[in-house]
Amino acid sequence: MELLLASKSPRRRELIAQLGYKYQIIDNNAPEDFPHHLKAEQIPVFLAEQKANFNKLSLSQNQVAIFADTIVWCEDEVLNKPENYEEAKKMLQKLSGKSHQVISGLCLKSHHKKESFFDITTVYFKPLLENEIDYYIKNYKPYDKAGAYGIQEWIGFIGVEKIEGSYFNVVGLPIQKLYQKLLTF
Amino acid sequence: MELLLASKSPRRRELIAQLGYKYQIIDNNAPEDFPHHLKAEQIPVFLAEQKANFNKLSLSQNQVAIFADTIVWCEDEVLNKPENYEEAKKMLQKLSGKSHQVISGLCLKSHHKKESFFDITTVYFKPLLENEIDYYIKNYKPYDKAGAYGIQEWIGFIGVEKIEGSYFNVVGLPIQKLYQKLLTF
Repeated sequence: MELLLASKSPRRRELIAQLGYKYQIIDNNAPEDFPHHLKAEQIPVFLAEQKANFNKLSLSQNQVAIFADTIVWCEDEVLNKPENYEEAKKMLQKLSGKSHQVISGLCLKSHHKKESFFDITTVYFKPLLENEIDYYIKNYKPYDKAGAYGIQEWIGFIGVEKIEGSYFNVVGLPIQKLYQKLLTF
Repeated sequence: MELLLASKSPRRRELIAQLGYKYQIIDNNAPEDFPHHLKAEQIPVFLAEQKANFNKLSLSQNQVAIFADTIVWCEDEVLNKPENYEEAKKMLQKLSGKSHQVISGLCLKSHHKKESFFDITTVYFKPLLENEIDYYIKNYKPYDKAGAYGIQEWIGFIGVEKIEGSYFNVVGLPIQKLYQKLLTF
């Protein structure tokens, strides 16, 4: 089996490489907007399926294409990638001292079928100090990260008290669920 | 503050490096045996304190020495490092399809005080296939790892359904709790 991963995320690429399958990266140019009535896990699943529908690649018998989207969901709203320092700071202040959900939606597509699923991890941040937030943003510039943090970076080491669910789902891909789906796909 | 880490584990060294403190590695030659009436978290705390007591280093005002031990605790027994292929296979078969605890004990020591604490993470393995166990042991040789697995290796990607607690505690050091203790130590 050969996997085709439609993602620009370097973290997703590193994770897919670990699975041990032959893989390649393919383009993803789908829009990132979604209907506003969608909530929580409906959003990344919708976005992953939208990516799958936009992609016109013809797949051979042994290929499976993987379309993924991940959102950070806190107090009933999505936290996107922060556009600047102030937005990153506001996001981390919002996440501080409480739990939020990291939700991935995946859509798998072969030459004859398509299947979607999601994975949810709950992440608990300790109350973050202002100097910890400032230190992190200044040194790690998390502008490419939804929710303004990477769990595998300094803020994850010092700030995340515990998680419930898959760690790799928070890094970028629910690799265990994906592996299990691929076994029977 | 300068940290002195008494550990031979390369994973612990990598984690301590992430904290951002100045640090150095020191020797650890304490025995690894413990009284048999001890259970669960009492064991790594005892072993960490034993390491601290064996160490005769004199610490300066700004130094904190860190002594750590981690055990894998499954069905009321400790899983140590496997001595050979068969033992590794038996351990992974035992962990398969159920949850176990990874428990770290830490002892912090400065020139005028000493403090111990522990951290527990529950790890849930999916039912592992025999060919998955064989593939992992042959390719990753987990003979230096308690419980015969590393969560940051292939078996962790494909086999761990979820965790409850700190991921880095399973990798080798409860880095968030350690950071928080150091803030007020």
